[in-house]
Amino acid sequence: MDTALTYADSHADRFVSELEELLRIPSVSTDSAYDDEVERAAEWLADHFDGIGMEHTEIIETDGHPLVYAEHITAPDKPTVVVYGHYDVQPPDPLEEWSTDPFDPIRHDGALYARGACDDKGQMFMHAKAAEAYLSAEGDLPVNLKYIIEGEEETGSMAIETYVREQGERLDGDVVLVSDTAMFSPETPSITYGLRGLAYAEITLEGPNRDLHSGNYGGAVDNPANALSRLVAGLHDDDHRIAIPRFYEDVRDLTAAERETYAALPFDEAAWQDAIGIDDVRTEGDYTTLECLSARPTLDVNGIWGGYTGEGAKTVLPSKAHAKISMRLVPDQQLGDVYDKLEAHLEAEVPDTMTLSVRRLHGGEPVLVDPSAPPMQAAKDAMGEVRGTDPVFVRNGGTIPVVADFQNHLGLDSVLMGFGLDSDAIHSPDEHFGLDRFHQGIQAIIRFHDHYAAMA
Amino acid sequence: MDTALTYADSHADRFVSELEELLRIPSVSTDSAYDDEVERAAEWLADHFDGIGMEHTEIIETDGHPLVYAEHITAPDKPTVVVYGHYDVQPPDPLEEWSTDPFDPIRHDGALYARGACDDKGQMFMHAKAAEAYLSAEGDLPVNLKYIIEGEEETGSMAIETYVREQGERLDGDVVLVSDTAMFSPETPSITYGLRGLAYAEITLEGPNRDLHSGNYGGAVDNPANALSRLVAGLHDDDHRIAIPRFYEDVRDLTAAERETYAALPFDEAAWQDAIGIDDVRTEGDYTTLECLSARPTLDVNGIWGGYTGEGAKTVLPSKAHAKISMRLVPDQQLGDVYDKLEAHLEAEVPDTMTLSVRRLHGGEPVLVDPSAPPMQAAKDAMGEVRGTDPVFVRNGGTIPVVADFQNHLGLDSVLMGFGLDSDAIHSPDEHFGLDRFHQGIQAIIRFHDHYAAMA
Repeated sequence: MDTALTYADSHADRFVSELEELLRIPSVSTDSAYDDEVERAAEWLADHFDGIGMEHTEIIETDGHPLVYAEHITAPDKPTVVVYGHYDVQPPDPLEEWSTDPFDPIRHDGALYARGACDDKGQMFMHAKAAEAYLSAEGDLPVNLKYIIEGEEETGSMAIETYVREQGERLDGDVVLVSDTAMFSPETPSITYGLRGLAYAEITLEGPNRDLHSGNYGGAVDNPANALSRLVAGLHDDDHRIAIPRFYEDVRDLTAAERETYAALPFDEAAWQDAIGIDDVRTEGDYTTLECLSARPTLDVNGIWGGYTGEGAKTVLPSKAHAKISMRLVPDQQLGDVYDKLEAHLEAEVPDTMTLSVRRLHGGEPVLVDPSAPPMQAAKDAMGEVRGTDPVFVRNGGTIPVVADFQNHLGLDSVLMGFGLDSDAIHSPDEHFGLDRFHQGIQAIIRFHDHYAAMA
Repeated sequence: MDTALTYADSHADRFVSELEELLRIPSVSTDSAYDDEVERAAEWLADHFDGIGMEHTEIIETDGHPLVYAEHITAPDKPTVVVYGHYDVQPPDPLEEWSTDPFDPIRHDGALYARGACDDKGQMFMHAKAAEAYLSAEGDLPVNLKYIIEGEEETGSMAIETYVREQGERLDGDVVLVSDTAMFSPETPSITYGLRGLAYAEITLEGPNRDLHSGNYGGAVDNPANALSRLVAGLHDDDHRIAIPRFYEDVRDLTAAERETYAALPFDEAAWQDAIGIDDVRTEGDYTTLECLSARPTLDVNGIWGGYTGEGAKTVLPSKAHAKISMRLVPDQQLGDVYDKLEAHLEAEVPDTMTLSVRRLHGGEPVLVDPSAPPMQAAKDAMGEVRGTDPVFVRNGGTIPVVADFQNHLGLDSVLMGFGLDSDAIHSPDEHFGLDRFHQGIQAIIRFHDHYAAMA
């Protein structure tokens, strides 16, 4: 392990330059205009795994974007670590709010700025560099290693879900290791033991068969944009609880112990509010902000549009209005069931002047893992040694759909050892990743393989 | 009069070709990208007035788009008719729904298709052609004539409003004649004696200082798009009445006689609904559809937007959300007062997690004219002779802001003798104007001048 650590240290700068190459490829998975770039990112990554000495590398074609697979299996008695990550990124919109080109990475103030710098190209690439360090410095790894890197994480992980369900035996192993989460804070490193699920839908209301003059038709023709506002408003009650019937019936409530752990976290709520420019939160019932951010379900409008949205005034009564609405789920909510409840509620509430359509865009199930399991403890030690402070175990409000699939289809728990920070602005303009954390991540992964091999 | 009518008849085809020239100029007043084209339309029109023999023509520069003025005053004892119209047009959006280029007029099935074909280039141009017929065929007009044609009707008529207020004496006269309205139906020609006013606002809600990841922040950060939906939903009650406090206090209710007139109109509501593809109306209290369309105030969302509106899914919690909201007003509501009430209501309802801003984009006051006045009766006769059926007097749900200004600042009533039809798709894709109505309009205007001169 020590020579691997030294190797990583002495090649740190080249590692960053290589990451910059990958960040220059705009692999935006949600927009088909970028399909060729997504493909190019997969090829770049596969070539890279080849180059660092992985025994076998391949691009697995799917109905969607390709999967990149690489393995290095040298002894049947070693534990097998499956590393998961993704090479696709969010769209860079709104482009005009970026300080620099999102696909031309720059190093500034100790951080690397680009779309995907943290989520997840930067974090995923740490795993490739950890393996390179072992293979170059020591000629072998303490564990067997399988990489499965997808290109659809930002759009619902459809291809990898199918792959896990249909060809999951290829990923047979002992544990999944993932770096796609944030630490609780710079001072409080953390390992994530819970993730929320996601149900993302696009709803459309259609009223009249064409846009109408609001003077000639206003007053008698129901307006889809007004009707959509009523529908959306009706999705919450006055206590900011979700008003969809039976929405909460499968929600596993927090245990007293969990609530204590939440309460003990060093959360500076005023600073947190300040960082995002808000004066007050809007939380559910008597749950704390932290609990609402990760252990309670949510419903948010991600986008809404209809009618004239250009400069000036157009007196139009729009024929259609649309909203993208997503819900974050917690155990034991089930994705399909929650979609059904949303749809039933909307159908019941939509006025008979409108036609409603609901498209289920993508989703993922929620996850919980036992923090006392050996790989979780190996990660705790590895991260603690690198950061100088033992990490805490926390739940995360985001969603990594495939982590639930690993658990539900392959029986594999995932260790979510991420080095992001909330301030990294993932999914936002000026996404970045601190270079110190990039290098620490590589060191921690090197240590994890060693410690886990010793425990397993 | 007869030689003028014959002249108009024998030059009918050239008149259409000339109108096509004007329609080729995309004079979209609401979008500054088209400013040069708006200017070009004004110049074309002034040149045209010169060409038909108007005594004096000029382009009046303003802080906004120019006014085109033309006059022909030959005897102080003749009554003076002020003709108002507008040469600007609505944006052509959504462009992809047009069957042909909105700024390349084509004649099809007896109609002329182009943005502005009816509203208002086509109708305004009828007045130029009626004057040409008199001047060319008879060497003079039975009335003194003043044209005031603006380029900002679709964005609030700011420049002409200022002009009327500050230099209104230039428009001294006896009556205003306007063709910018629709007939009740092809079988029921009509003259409009009432117009609704308009108060058009753009509202913005700002929450967090940047777009946030909905997984990391959802559940505690109030979402501006959800909050906007609540605000908009709260603008109506369950009876489709506007829920802004004291909104209705100045609304002059319909008289029993007016309600009888409405009830007597040959309105085929099923066919009307069918034409716009709706199964049911949404009206206020026990008012009929026709009453709600023209004699009751309204509130409509004309546009709404926020967050991610592209292809696929983006899990963003938007930092801002926007809506364009307009209200149609009826006598005796006052524009400024209604804006104040809207703003006070929104300020009271906006959650303290949000910053609200309200921009007053443009507006106009409502209008009512006495149908028994001589120019109204002259118009009734002129239109009846041309259409073969006496027109009825109706109220119109649309707004022509300057008509209220003529009434309030110059004491001039307006005769709204329009030849449009609801099926002309003004403000919508495939706007068109039946060529029969274009030619009938010219004939009716020729007759109006004659009849009104005889009465006055």
